[in-house]
Amino acid sequence: MSLLEKTISSIRPQDADARVKAKARLDQLIMPHWALGRLMDLATDLAGITGSIKPAVARKTIVTMAGDHGVAAEGVSAYPQEVTPQMVGGFVAGMAGINALGRLAGAKVVVADLGVAADLSELAKSGKIIDKKVALGTANMAKGPAMTRAQAQRSIEAGIEVANELSATTDVFGTGDMGIANTTPSTAILAVLTGTPVPDITGRGTGIDDATLTHKIAVVNRAIQVNQPNATDPLDVLSKVGGFEIGGIAGLVLGAASLRKPVVVDGFISTAGAMLACALCPKAADYIIAAHRSVEQGHRFMHSHLGKQPLLDLNLRLGEGTGAALAMNLVEAAMRVLTEIATFEEAHVSKAE
Amino acid sequence: MSLLEKTISSIRPQDADARVKAKARLDQLIMPHWALGRLMDLATDLAGITGSIKPAVARKTIVTMAGDHGVAAEGVSAYPQEVTPQMVGGFVAGMAGINALGRLAGAKVVVADLGVAADLSELAKSGKIIDKKVALGTANMAKGPAMTRAQAQRSIEAGIEVANELSATTDVFGTGDMGIANTTPSTAILAVLTGTPVPDITGRGTGIDDATLTHKIAVVNRAIQVNQPNATDPLDVLSKVGGFEIGGIAGLVLGAASLRKPVVVDGFISTAGAMLACALCPKAADYIIAAHRSVEQGHRFMHSHLGKQPLLDLNLRLGEGTGAALAMNLVEAAMRVLTEIATFEEAHVSKAE
Repeated sequence: MSLLEKTISSIRPQDADARVKAKARLDQLIMPHWALGRLMDLATDLAGITGSIKPAVARKTIVTMAGDHGVAAEGVSAYPQEVTPQMVGGFVAGMAGINALGRLAGAKVVVADLGVAADLSELAKSGKIIDKKVALGTANMAKGPAMTRAQAQRSIEAGIEVANELSATTDVFGTGDMGIANTTPSTAILAVLTGTPVPDITGRGTGIDDATLTHKIAVVNRAIQVNQPNATDPLDVLSKVGGFEIGGIAGLVLGAASLRKPVVVDGFISTAGAMLACALCPKAADYIIAAHRSVEQGHRFMHSHLGKQPLLDLNLRLGEGTGAALAMNLVEAAMRVLTEIATFEEAHVSKAE
Repeated sequence: MSLLEKTISSIRPQDADARVKAKARLDQLIMPHWALGRLMDLATDLAGITGSIKPAVARKTIVTMAGDHGVAAEGVSAYPQEVTPQMVGGFVAGMAGINALGRLAGAKVVVADLGVAADLSELAKSGKIIDKKVALGTANMAKGPAMTRAQAQRSIEAGIEVANELSATTDVFGTGDMGIANTTPSTAILAVLTGTPVPDITGRGTGIDDATLTHKIAVVNRAIQVNQPNATDPLDVLSKVGGFEIGGIAGLVLGAASLRKPVVVDGFISTAGAMLACALCPKAADYIIAAHRSVEQGHRFMHSHLGKQPLLDLNLRLGEGTGAALAMNLVEAAMRVLTEIATFEEAHVSKAE
């Protein structure tokens, strides 16, 4: 049995008993019933995910998965491909958005190279990044498959390996991404998995103009036309119109689910990975916390497909895991609501009449 | 000149120069332009508020203002009035929602008695609460003015005093409230200041049923009918249909603005206080950060009137300052975006083509 099959077969639904116990306590806290709303929903999920009414959430790890995309050659991004390794350098130096917000969240930021089109072996050797490179960037999906089926499986299994390797030091995972042009494959994945027309779900990514947006829509449509991905076969979708870091994120989600740990899913690219994970194993959705709704217009279609309501809506469109880092605070808040507030009985407060 | 007049006359708009400098830096951070969206808007505000591109936000104080309401006698709340002092006891014991979320935010929670209908002098003597009691609860506004004009001014000045007393140990203020029945005067204040029909803005507060909601709407309408508050005179509005803790919150907002410190405004009751503060001094709005949109249906009318978009929307309806505590994390995040992320030049990253 492959690591992917083994991981999927080990994923169980949330613990129903722990959910019931958490709800019973939350129902009795000294406040109008369920007055902390979505924090209480989230607290119930944390209990169900971890199987405990004292869910551990202290040790947070955000994995920022990096990869490059052959489709960048079509001119779908405002930035040159060299920015991907440059930003990896920025992450390692602690200078980027995810570093600032990861520090605030008390989260460790781990950078994994799933397929950057540059030699990052020095960073890997010195332990500054995790080397899971599948290849030096994907092929141009506008002309043929982005990767082979074996590479697609390898990228997902690399993400599972990362989850397993970090498991001993992690209570809550967060996902993140870096890869110039990666809103383009993410849009294609969304289009294929949901059948939504490409113009409805294609956004401006890093900030492209109207002409480039029209071109990007055409490129996504062409990639789907050329490759004819099979919507019922997630590995086929990933291989035809995906990316290595997107596969890695799918693997991280599956790995977290198999470990019964919550995974806070960041923005548009991360949620494309989460969609593939749930297509492979629908029960994985039980372990996903949707961090935020990004500016990218397709993101709400993804959340709707997954049945998830994001926690934050702050006009973010950076990726890297920045939205996941912000949402970590709400995860911790939910845990504290469940564990630190007294019940009416404990506090001798009168109930509703 | 009264403390109120002196405070109002000292409030200046945000520092335009610091805003420009903050924006110039944020424009150059290593990310697509303004990709951290509302965190960057907030960072610009923090610079304008504090006059610094390294705004201090580390020392956070949430002031939970407590008061009782004569209108509770009309049966507008699901809870008995005795819950107000009971919850003050819960705050002092560290057992309530605001304690749990205040701890997470790294905020000091200060409880101030503006007008609880119970003897809290032991708590005041031992320094566990701040004693600013104006009276033992307001009068029943459904039958006449909730308080005298002098009491209205006193409650606001008490809030200003609290801001001034805490100033030396506070970078960011947060507001909070406790007072059984206090969504009822808050709804009346909103109706008077904006002219919105009462049924459109009356919510279920702590969780009343349909019949009580209909009754609550009638009570608010009767209070306005009986008292005829002058919408252009905020002190008249507060005295006729307000509450002591609502006046205190208005004062805290004015005090924070005069001190050039941000004030994170919590839910429906807090925002009613903020509306009075801005009616007295429109420039005070420059210092207000709207924490969240609550379940209470009138809250969005308040934000719209103030021209504020709340940061969070999590189905909260607890008050106490809990939403302000959660939003403190985003205030700190905005500061870190402004001060901890490198520019393209600093990080040697290529810009958009």
